[in-house]
Amino acid sequence: MSPRIDALQYANWSEKIFRQMRAGGVDAVHVTITYHENFRETVLNVERWNRWFERLPDLIFQGFTADDIDLARRTGRTAIFFGSQNPSCIEDDIGLVEVLHRLGLRFMQLTYNNQSLLASGCYEAEDTGLTRMGREVVAEMNRVGLVIDMSHSGERSTLDAIAHSARPIAITHANPASWHPALRNKSDRVLRALAESGGMLGFSVYPHHLRAGSDCSLDDFCTMVARTADLMGVERIGIGTDLCQDQPDSVVDWMRAGRWTKARDYGEGSAANPGFPPMPVWFRDNRDFGQIEEGLRAVGLSPENVTAVMGGNWARFFRESFGAVERARQEAAQ
Amino acid sequence: MSPRIDALQYANWSEKIFRQMRAGGVDAVHVTITYHENFRETVLNVERWNRWFERLPDLIFQGFTADDIDLARRTGRTAIFFGSQNPSCIEDDIGLVEVLHRLGLRFMQLTYNNQSLLASGCYEAEDTGLTRMGREVVAEMNRVGLVIDMSHSGERSTLDAIAHSARPIAITHANPASWHPALRNKSDRVLRALAESGGMLGFSVYPHHLRAGSDCSLDDFCTMVARTADLMGVERIGIGTDLCQDQPDSVVDWMRAGRWTKARDYGEGSAANPGFPPMPVWFRDNRDFGQIEEGLRAVGLSPENVTAVMGGNWARFFRESFGAVERARQEAAQ
Repeated sequence: MSPRIDALQYANWSEKIFRQMRAGGVDAVHVTITYHENFRETVLNVERWNRWFERLPDLIFQGFTADDIDLARRTGRTAIFFGSQNPSCIEDDIGLVEVLHRLGLRFMQLTYNNQSLLASGCYEAEDTGLTRMGREVVAEMNRVGLVIDMSHSGERSTLDAIAHSARPIAITHANPASWHPALRNKSDRVLRALAESGGMLGFSVYPHHLRAGSDCSLDDFCTMVARTADLMGVERIGIGTDLCQDQPDSVVDWMRAGRWTKARDYGEGSAANPGFPPMPVWFRDNRDFGQIEEGLRAVGLSPENVTAVMGGNWARFFRESFGAVERARQEAAQ
Repeated sequence: MSPRIDALQYANWSEKIFRQMRAGGVDAVHVTITYHENFRETVLNVERWNRWFERLPDLIFQGFTADDIDLARRTGRTAIFFGSQNPSCIEDDIGLVEVLHRLGLRFMQLTYNNQSLLASGCYEAEDTGLTRMGREVVAEMNRVGLVIDMSHSGERSTLDAIAHSARPIAITHANPASWHPALRNKSDRVLRALAESGGMLGFSVYPHHLRAGSDCSLDDFCTMVARTADLMGVERIGIGTDLCQDQPDSVVDWMRAGRWTKARDYGEGSAANPGFPPMPVWFRDNRDFGQIEEGLRAVGLSPENVTAVMGGNWARFFRESFGAVERARQEAAQ
């Protein structure tokens, strides 16, 4: 049996949510641990996670390698893999890439909506593509086994990252723009380039990424997944819900505005709809992964393809992506 | 054959020194990576080490577990284990104990000569013993597998740490005060308590810890080792040279004075002798471990005991000490 994996969540973590992961049979989750936090602040977030792992070792533990997905399944727990949605955590210091990888960071977005030191975000008017530092950091992330995530990046930057990266990259949480033309969703050109390079797309259930928003039907969502399988190949897609369960709206303000503006930025929302949107009725929390699975079957995906999309593909990608290049070389030399 | 291990060096690292480690057959070295540096500064030092590991993977690599001693022997390299000589790196934040252990820290002194947040140093007029935070940090170090090192601590603090720690502790670099009564050397009372608790003493070759200083003879040093084996048990002793090769004297000023005084502190030295003292002729660098080994044989230690002292005992101690308590529990539960 194939594992069930979610490639993006940023919840207001609680024992309740971890128990819901177990109830939903979720074996591994890529969790966001930091947005605009600098290195030291990110380490404080790691410390908070360490307290969760210490308090609830029968529910969750930190994942470092793809083997931890198997360990989670064998021991009835959920492996938590760390990620960052912005490169603030490496500050201006490429050496922090390896340090954060050692602390367990397995995904890092090169940008979050805005221009960063590395690349451009999807909300900038001008997209620089990869910067000088961006190219260096991509190579360093390749070396240590830290996945480049372009979910919130601009089109040119994303194509640049795909082309420049020596290892496949990920868009952990977004949908095709051809289905719902949000700035955060991705063009067919990006999705094809991602698939051809061996990368992965995780389908988001965050209402701003859905056609009809919170009212999007499960059938419409799953039909979109099936069509994207036709476009990219079924082995290149998985789930990345972007579940932000139980977060107060102050958190979406932090995600959007960080410390880069004194004004309020509405991101994908608006002055009339500034907070977290309500989730669709068919995916309220981790207990609802079975509904997505049923929905995929209902639109005609084969059982093999359903298990691949629900986690098998991410498991393969984790296995190919999290190891350091030189470690593999050393072990081969023995 | 037993490994050769040095439980303390703080050299001005260079490819030359790493090649001398290979020439001396040194399989593992506990290196000091930080003294008075705060957490972020300590991470900068980790980054410098990461560059060494990346540049010279055929000579050195970072050690995390005792298995890395075997890996070093199999691949003809030296495993480098990180340590701190002061708790400045955890600042006032107990959560940094686990974070630094994840980055590879395997030894931490609770004090360096002075009072710290955790305990008292051997140069303080008053020894508080373990402080409130000290007791908490000892328990946390026990939990994650970070060895408590009391080489630079006061007598009462050291006895307190031995008594309070649930796992054996180390004095990585010091000699018996009964042989040479320096403030940094240890009383028979401390050495007996250390041995009874399963702890380890590493014999220092730093001239201020030697009878007759730089002029100490190999025979006198090895006779002292043999007598300490009688006092503590031969399974409780190893080597911890305190080799500070190629360091400029500005470094010993930093070690002694950090940022805690604007004046100059001479530590074990004096105004007349402020710098690093010259090493004894029989131990100038890593190539001379064979001379110590021969010296130990010459004073009558059996071949088995010589190999135990030269590294076998530290290898056992590393194996018992570097694992996290809960990790062991999890693995047993599978």
